Parts: sequence; C-alpha cells; structure tokens
Amino acid sequence: MTYCLSLLCREGIICVSDSRTSAGVDNINIRPKMRLYSVPGERVVCLMTSGNLSVTQTVIALIEEDTVRARTDPAHPHLLTQPTLFETARYVGEKIRRVSDLDRVALERDGFNFNINVIVAGQIAGGAPELHYVYPQGNSIQATVESPFLQIGEYKYGKPILHRGFSFETRLSESVKFALLSMEATIRSNVSVGGPFDVFVYETDSLQIRHRRRIEENDPYFRELAGIWTGGIISLVEKIPTLTFDPPPS
Amino acid sequence: MTYCLSLLCREGIICVSDSRTSAGVDNINIRPKMRLYSVPGERVVCLMTSGNLSVTQTVIALIEEDTVRARTDPAHPHLLTQPTLFETARYVGEKIRRVSDLDRVALERDGFNFNINVIVAGQIAGGAPELHYVYPQGNSIQATVESPFLQIGEYKYGKPILHRGFSFETRLSESVKFALLSMEATIRSNVSVGGPFDVFVYETDSLQIRHRRRIEENDPYFRELAGIWTGGIISLVEKIPTLTFDPPPS
Repeated sequence: MTYCLSLLCREGIICVSDSRTSAGVDNINIRPKMRLYSVPGERVVCLMTSGNLSVTQTVIALIEEDTVRARTDPAHPHLLTQPTLFETARYVGEKIRRVSDLDRVALERDGFNFNINVIVAGQIAGGAPELHYVYPQGNSIQATVESPFLQIGEYKYGKPILHRGFSFETRLSESVKFALLSMEATIRSNVSVGGPFDVFVYETDSLQIRHRRRIEENDPYFRELAGIWTGGIISLVEKIPTLTFDPPPS
Repeated sequence: MTYCLSLLCREGIICVSDSRTSAGVDNINIRPKMRLYSVPGERVVCLMTSGNLSVTQTVIALIEEDTVRARTDPAHPHLLTQPTLFETARYVGEKIRRVSDLDRVALERDGFNFNINVIVAGQIAGGAPELHYVYPQGNSIQATVESPFLQIGEYKYGKPILHRGFSFETRLSESVKFALLSMEATIRSNVSVGGPFDVFVYETDSLQIRHRRRIEENDPYFRELAGIWTGGIISLVEKIPTLTFDPPPS
C-alpha cells in the first residue's frame, strides 16, 4: 500500500510520501515514491505515484527514456519541456496510456488491476504552483483554493486532520506539520504504509528544490510531533464538556 | 452508508450510531441503526447494524418474531434468553444465516452483495460487559482490553482519533467524547454518513438502560464539541516545532 499527499497553500506546496511497497504482508519492501525534477529558475516538478509497482516503474522508465533521448535530440519533448503544469500532467497521462497499451491485457488476464495514480506538483515560471491528480486512464484533475489537497493510496485515515485544520491560507511551516500528522495517522492505522518518508517543501516562485528531507519513523522530530500531538489531544478532549443525558425513564 | 462504533472500557460501554441510509446520493433516508433491549437487573443488549437495509431489517424482524412467539410459548428461545453475550452474538449470527438462506441467491443474481455486519454490545448478570462483531457469515469476534473498540460501516475516517486517545482505561465520560469525535470526523469526510446520532452509555454492572440520547447534527453540544476540537487542533499544531531542513545542495 501507499500514502502520498500534496497540499497547496498560498505560500507554496507540501509533498509527503511513504515508501512501503508490499505484495502481501510477507513481502514488504522500501521504495521511495517521490521523484523531484527541476530546471532551476524555470520549473520544479514533483511526481508521486501509487498503484501496481510494475506499472508505476514502467511509466517512470518511459518518462526517463524521453529525457535521455533529448540529450542527443534536443527537440524531443520530455517531462521538463511542457509549456504548463497541466500539460506536464497530460504528458504523464500519455505515458500511463502507453503502459496500458503494453501491459493491461496481460495483467487483467491474470486478475491484476491496471492500477496507477500520480500526483504532479510544482510550478513553471509564468504560472502559479499547481497540483494535478492523474488517473489510470490518463485523464487528470487539479487542486483548487477550495479543495487544496490531493491524496493517493490509503487516503482515508489521514483526511480528517486535513479537513479540520488545513486550508489554502495555512502558513507553509504549519502546513508541513498537518501533512506529517496526516501521514502519522495513516501509519498508525495501516501497517502497509510506512517510513521512511520523503518530505518536499516548495516555496512559491522559488523555482528551485531547496527544502527536501527524508524522515525515518524513529526520527526525533517525527517522534516529538507524534508525542505532542497524542498528549495534546487527550488534554483537548478533557476540555470538552461532558455530555448530559435526559433523566432515565421512570 | 453507515458508521457505528462501540467502545469497551473498564467503567462500561459506549455505543454511537448514525442514521443515514442511502441507495445512491439521490435517495437518502434517515433510519436509526441502534436498537436497545433489556431485562432490567439481568441484562442489557445493544444491537447496531450496517449493510444492505433489507438484510438488516429482515434479521431484526426474525429476532423480533422470536420475542413475540415467546409471549405465548415461554420456552421459546429468543434474544434475551441466551446464557451469555457470546451466545447472544451467535444467536444473531444464526438469524443472519437464515436470511442468507432466504435471500442470498436472489440478491447475488442481480449483482447485490449479501452484506450485513452487526455489533452486539452489553452485559448479562454474572458476566463482564462485552462487545461482539458478527459477520455476514454468522461468525463473530470479540473486543478485548488490547483492542477495545469495534466499528462497522465507514470506519476509516474515525479510527485515528480512537488510536490516539482511547484505551480500555479511559474514563466513561471521556470515552463518549472520543466516540462523538470519531463520528464527527466521519460525517465531515463522507456525506453518506449523517445524523441524527444515537448515543448509549452503559455503566458496568448497572444492568439497565439509563443513559441514551439522540443528538441532531445541529445539537448545541455537538456543535460545541466540534468547535472546541477544531480550534484546539489548530493551536496544538502551532505548539509543534517547525521542521528544519538540511541546507540546500550547493
């Protein structure tokens, strides 16, 4: 399983991904799911993937093939030559459709789903920071000010904390805490989601990869965050008045 | 959709259920999912159901048929004559198997799942308070001190708050707040779960139905609980230190 999320706020973008890959509970591996690309001063693109590992790796391989080919054929389009982030998401969608053409029949014949979801986050000079969600069919949707986050994989456990406290106006430094708390809620409830976590914090208009970090589950900061949170929640519940009941029926 | 949960603590049991029933978003109805039965001084049994509404109602109808029949045939076994709460759960499981015999083939022929889950919570004199989860196959599991809560229906959104703060040792008055916060997290994230909510608080060894209440979504207490919670969470996140990053690569 997987959990990746991306938050869009006025000050920038937060991306957090887990790295647990499993083909059943007896075969768990660590594979990062976040990839960062940039042309400093011009664009930053973050890709996060969930789904069948073979499908996601093949999509990434096709994307990287284009990049390699562009070294000898500079006119060849690739991930970092798209005019907008929307077109970048559509480009990723085209690669998904290519892999669908290659592998879907063989996968489905043996009962596997053709399953991949991709978050494309970033900014291209002249545009605003954006988040796009690319589906297994290659189509995409985009986060908005009203719906400012995207999640892929095991999204339910980590959603309430975002609904409670995160909005487009949340400061970037606070947003990263909401993202990590969302991840922490998920790993507590689903053992097939786990660390280390990749964290990327992008500041609007920086057009560079400045703040990225890999956090282990036993990282002192991550443990402190979880500890303050759990202790604080219990105190907070104590502050809520007690529910009263109607007198029992006589 | 449905969300019902039951918490087991040293001081007693909390049961909370929603009442939204839908056959698609264009056909939403209100139907309570909690039913309380008692023989005061001897036993209290709370049933909460999720799944196909026809299946759950037919199971309840069969249970109530037994009760009616026992009025003229006092030797006829029914829900409130079982020797233990485990046997009470098995009795409910037998009714589920009866409905499976009656309706499963016809349902599955038209693509419907035979889907029902039941929580059986309560206490019988001589035993401890217990929670049992009865599956569509009629078998059951039981909550324990280590795993002291059961959920049916849309359980994921409301699970992290329970993992964070609730344990078997949590006071009864605090436990009811955790249960309501779990419900509140769920209705925020899934519109097919909704109020009014039925709340039942059972005190160990009382062997009576003393504390029950129906709460509307706009109930002043429920709104206060949600307000304190959301405001408190934002303050709590502010108390967490800011994540630091490695210096950017030069």
